Amino acid sequence: MAGKVYLVGAGPGDPELLTLKALRVLRTADVVLHDELVGPEILSLVSPTAQVQNVGKRCGRKSATQAEINALLVNYGLLDLRVVRLKGGDPLIFGRGGEEIEALRKANLDVEVIPGVTAALGAAAAAQIPLTHRGLSSSLIFITNHHASASDTGDWPASISPTATVVVYMPGYAYAATARQLVAAGLKASTPCAIISQATRPEERVYKTIVEDLHSAPRLPAPTLLVVGEVVRLAERRSLQEQFSTRSTIEEFLPLAQSESFAQSQGITEISERPE
Amino acid sequence: MAGKVYLVGAGPGDPELLTLKALRVLRTADVVLHDELVGPEILSLVSPTAQVQNVGKRCGRKSATQAEINALLVNYGLLDLRVVRLKGGDPLIFGRGGEEIEALRKANLDVEVIPGVTAALGAAAAAQIPLTHRGLSSSLIFITNHHASASDTGDWPASISPTATVVVYMPGYAYAATARQLVAAGLKASTPCAIISQATRPEERVYKTIVEDLHSAPRLPAPTLLVVGEVVRLAERRSLQEQFSTRSTIEEFLPLAQSESFAQSQGITEISERPE
Repeated sequence: MAGKVYLVGAGPGDPELLTLKALRVLRTADVVLHDELVGPEILSLVSPTAQVQNVGKRCGRKSATQAEINALLVNYGLLDLRVVRLKGGDPLIFGRGGEEIEALRKANLDVEVIPGVTAALGAAAAAQIPLTHRGLSSSLIFITNHHASASDTGDWPASISPTATVVVYMPGYAYAATARQLVAAGLKASTPCAIISQATRPEERVYKTIVEDLHSAPRLPAPTLLVVGEVVRLAERRSLQEQFSTRSTIEEFLPLAQSESFAQSQGITEISERPE
Repeated sequence: MAGKVYLVGAGPGDPELLTLKALRVLRTADVVLHDELVGPEILSLVSPTAQVQNVGKRCGRKSATQAEINALLVNYGLLDLRVVRLKGGDPLIFGRGGEEIEALRKANLDVEVIPGVTAALGAAAAAQIPLTHRGLSSSLIFITNHHASASDTGDWPASISPTATVVVYMPGYAYAATARQLVAAGLKASTPCAIISQATRPEERVYKTIVEDLHSAPRLPAPTLLVVGEVVRLAERRSLQEQFSTRSTIEEFLPLAQSESFAQSQGITEISERPE
């Protein structure tokens, strides 16, 4: 019998936003290939006997190419192993999960996809931005700006409804170009927007502005998301006291998660409109 | 000190797709107000001393109005209770979570939002449809068809990019009207689409067709989702054997979830292109 490959979403950052199913699969994996976005707290939940490999894109070293990752997944799968491909957010949204599924199917390997809380939902929850809202937003669009530059409009939709909420994944720092693209797609320059950095992590920051002023926004640390739409007006800063009170240790409810890294991760979440 | 209200996403249906954080909050709640979409397996995880109230819209009885739900949340919050508003999927996508947040803020109550796996992600994972895919789909649009009729185009975007994946929440059964709206928005009649019924539940069904033939699709049981786009071609039927092997009991990994209802829920998931 050949192995099986699980494409697993690790959620937006907070290890408590992992699903029960993802946790189960991580604890019984033989091999885990993960992105850079997956933090050490989540990796500490992986079975201690598993081989864990970072195939991500930072760390000052060259990342594996998608073809190399596909080949690794296939080779491990053919070795009759339980293989987990662990991705930040959800595996089927801007994660190239479809390419991995295709490679695995060609090799006749079993694939199971375990969805995760995609970054947009984590960011919206943290900043309390309703992504749809009666009278303000009746649709929600996810786009990516991965290769945005002043001259590159990428694959953006030609027009965006003014009653849509737009979430730009990997917006990068070419804010002026992004603002121009949003206006070219039909949005008003006065449309509110928010850059959310490291959503659901202790280092989380939210910067609110309007499309017209986006060019002067600070370069907050990656990963960031850009949320654009009238609903951003409803975002609210939470009090520091409240943020302290809502954090608790994961091991209180999950006896299996006893590593020290969890306790260390239980910092506070600060949302500020103008980070220092 | 006043209480606190948690808006919590219960995920797409499978109780294992609950997040660890949602589980923690459910186990320490004083009051849980839930939608009809939240199943008994998830409700069995709620603290046994909590008051649990269905404010949903089916069951043959009249549901609470949104104003009534807002009032309940505020009143329980002012009683110094830990209140959970539990919604299928994610609380900030087509869930009127924003209205509840506004009501709670007006009452000066603390609110925390715990995101969940929204239905689209559950359905995509189950049917193995990559929601974005290089060369096929570079953006993702969520819309709802809640009040669709032959004459009502609701708040749909005037135009939809042919390189977008569209997910219609609550598509209803006016398939012919929905197909007309999709074509009017610029999609080709030959665009593939899938109706996914009760995604991630044991009763899950997937029906694949094209926009032009959508009118003759069967009325699969709610909740359903309609996914439209070239990526639907990549959906794959999983073998029954594989589906058997991937289900396992939740209590194997979560000693705290020991209710019988869980064991009963561990059926199989069947995906068929043409359900009988």
